[in-house]
Amino acid sequence: MQYRKRQARARQRMERGGVEALLISHLPNVRYLCGFSGSNALLLLAPTQTILFTDGRYREQARTEVMGASVVVPPKGDLWKAAAAKAAKLKRVGLDSDHVTVTQRSRWLASWSGRAAGLKSASGWIEPLRAVKDPEEIEAIERAVRLASSAFAPTLKRCRPGVSETELAGWLEFNLRRAGGEGLAFETILAGGAHGALVHAQPGRQPLPHRGRRQLGGARNASGRTLPGFEARAPSDQRERPGQKVASHFVVMDYGVVLAGYHSDMTRTVHLGRPDRKAQTVYRAVLEAQLAAIAAVRPGVTGATVDAAARSVLRQAGFARYFPHSTGHGVGLEIHEAPRIASTATGENDRLQTGQVVTIEPGVYIPGWGGVRIEDVVLVTAQGAKVLTPTPKDLIVL
Amino acid sequence: MQYRKRQARARQRMERGGVEALLISHLPNVRYLCGFSGSNALLLLAPTQTILFTDGRYREQARTEVMGASVVVPPKGDLWKAAAAKAAKLKRVGLDSDHVTVTQRSRWLASWSGRAAGLKSASGWIEPLRAVKDPEEIEAIERAVRLASSAFAPTLKRCRPGVSETELAGWLEFNLRRAGGEGLAFETILAGGAHGALVHAQPGRQPLPHRGRRQLGGARNASGRTLPGFEARAPSDQRERPGQKVASHFVVMDYGVVLAGYHSDMTRTVHLGRPDRKAQTVYRAVLEAQLAAIAAVRPGVTGATVDAAARSVLRQAGFARYFPHSTGHGVGLEIHEAPRIASTATGENDRLQTGQVVTIEPGVYIPGWGGVRIEDVVLVTAQGAKVLTPTPKDLIVL
Repeated sequence: MQYRKRQARARQRMERGGVEALLISHLPNVRYLCGFSGSNALLLLAPTQTILFTDGRYREQARTEVMGASVVVPPKGDLWKAAAAKAAKLKRVGLDSDHVTVTQRSRWLASWSGRAAGLKSASGWIEPLRAVKDPEEIEAIERAVRLASSAFAPTLKRCRPGVSETELAGWLEFNLRRAGGEGLAFETILAGGAHGALVHAQPGRQPLPHRGRRQLGGARNASGRTLPGFEARAPSDQRERPGQKVASHFVVMDYGVVLAGYHSDMTRTVHLGRPDRKAQTVYRAVLEAQLAAIAAVRPGVTGATVDAAARSVLRQAGFARYFPHSTGHGVGLEIHEAPRIASTATGENDRLQTGQVVTIEPGVYIPGWGGVRIEDVVLVTAQGAKVLTPTPKDLIVL
Repeated sequence: MQYRKRQARARQRMERGGVEALLISHLPNVRYLCGFSGSNALLLLAPTQTILFTDGRYREQARTEVMGASVVVPPKGDLWKAAAAKAAKLKRVGLDSDHVTVTQRSRWLASWSGRAAGLKSASGWIEPLRAVKDPEEIEAIERAVRLASSAFAPTLKRCRPGVSETELAGWLEFNLRRAGGEGLAFETILAGGAHGALVHAQPGRQPLPHRGRRQLGGARNASGRTLPGFEARAPSDQRERPGQKVASHFVVMDYGVVLAGYHSDMTRTVHLGRPDRKAQTVYRAVLEAQLAAIAAVRPGVTGATVDAAARSVLRQAGFARYFPHSTGHGVGLEIHEAPRIASTATGENDRLQTGQVVTIEPGVYIPGWGGVRIEDVVLVTAQGAKVLTPTPKDLIVL
């Protein structure tokens, strides 16, 4: 990776911001600028040198990973004090204030001979640089995305009614590991039946729902009208009581892998047993919303435009109020990073650029019934979106 | 869990700190005080009520999880603004300053009608409450610890030379999931041979070392004397070149699981093939250091005393300089929390108390050769340490 080039761009930003030095505490920013991947570090971009501070646990690792910076391991492990000492003669230092805590700032000021007025907020200086990926980064993300996709098909063999969510998550994660995944991109979300209505459901010990149980619960659109296919129905199964809300048979799997520091993120939703009309309607609406958002991606449009494309499809289908999150997010060294793909992403800085990588992931979540979400990673190119996720999106029935 | 009791204790601390309200942004603290486990929240302990702010993704989840607090989902998703509006009439508000970023503090001030001078630092107010566990918490940790231990033996069947670190990590994590683990407590550390010298090694695609390759590298103690059993040796294997440093055949596995929000943490180190004298010496020293530290645990001693007990054994064995991290840490809703078990934990607040739960995990890491670490979770009782980890610690040779 081109660490010195990135540091040069950071220094241009520092110049515009009027500081002599910049202190970075956010680990993904540290990794972006010098390659260090440990869990404790500070990076000081000083006027004539770049210094990484870390502790004794990472001495070896820093030696092999860090490029374009010298490494300092303070004897007593106080990185803030050591960095402040190095910056003692400076008058204007930028602080990564989106990530520095109020306590850390105080610790810096206690050791730094400068004054509080000399500290500048460097809020959002590095993240916009990171949002536009260089070719090595795009390749790293593509590798992570392909690896995660390769774990999906073998996992489906284990996806059967009665298997617990945690066990299925275990198979999924094992398939990621066997394919060479260095870590999980985030806590796997795996939820069947009504549990799928929790957008960020943690896998539980409950079994996946049994095939073929009929849906009973009704659902209404924003104006209170019962949606076609969502009428409450008479029970067809002796195990069900009239009026009882029966969950969907969808299983939502949202997962990702880390490879060389870069994250993948994908969601597929499969159905156990023959889908009824309601299940088909929900799935089709989410898929159409996802395709519409992907079609809206191109350089120069705002994240809000892409978000609106998905939301508009779901509104027309009567599901807008069951879609409580944003349509996507940037992905890279962090699982969520710039740019934003959300209704609030309307500013000039929210315009997509060639080389950005984002997820597109609309969903519908009906309390007491379940959820459907479909998510790909896409690259913004001059020609529009290039979908990086190879896994198909037709409704899979198991 | 006793959320109202915990909130009452937090309010006592607020009274001592002279604030009318306390704003909590650190998610483990939020969970501790009201049970909410989502990834985006603010908790306001106001004079007459407790309010949880979260976003639309967690509306359902908050409904089922939160106890002792009302739930607010601000329409535009700006939790800071919504909380500041609720606190508009207050003059003195405590801010969780160890976790609030400089940017978040500014966002609060922009929406709050109070003045900066009315913001008090509530640094370290909640963590000491969390350090002493109530019986339900101890039970939750014990369950997590037992679950993680149960995954160790089946994983050993997969631990063979030539298997990649990522695949073995995959089996380990699968066994955790199959046993019902809700998530990993942290990124699994799994490293064989020389890779084990990295304290926080991420599993890689490299295979575990082959049995029976002889050790060549020398090692010296602090005074530069070659340690017995560590003399550089002539090559016994045609695949090795004279002078080449050959790694140990140890495999370090440091992993944990989350169950109902509580973390486990354990490390075992096994040997592939018959251990030579060097391997035996290192293992014995680490085990003795670990037992010495456990023996030092009792209410009233500082974390530094426990740390010194381990360090002293390693110093006598000539390995002190190969032990770069602290001997342990508290564990609970976070993988690292109070109390500290470190050479710097010498203050009055660093004295252990009955009901605290800590790890004891000394290690020896020899660059170019490998590492050994042994870690248990222990409960501080009036009678001393109660080891919660059931897995034996004799050297396992595979």
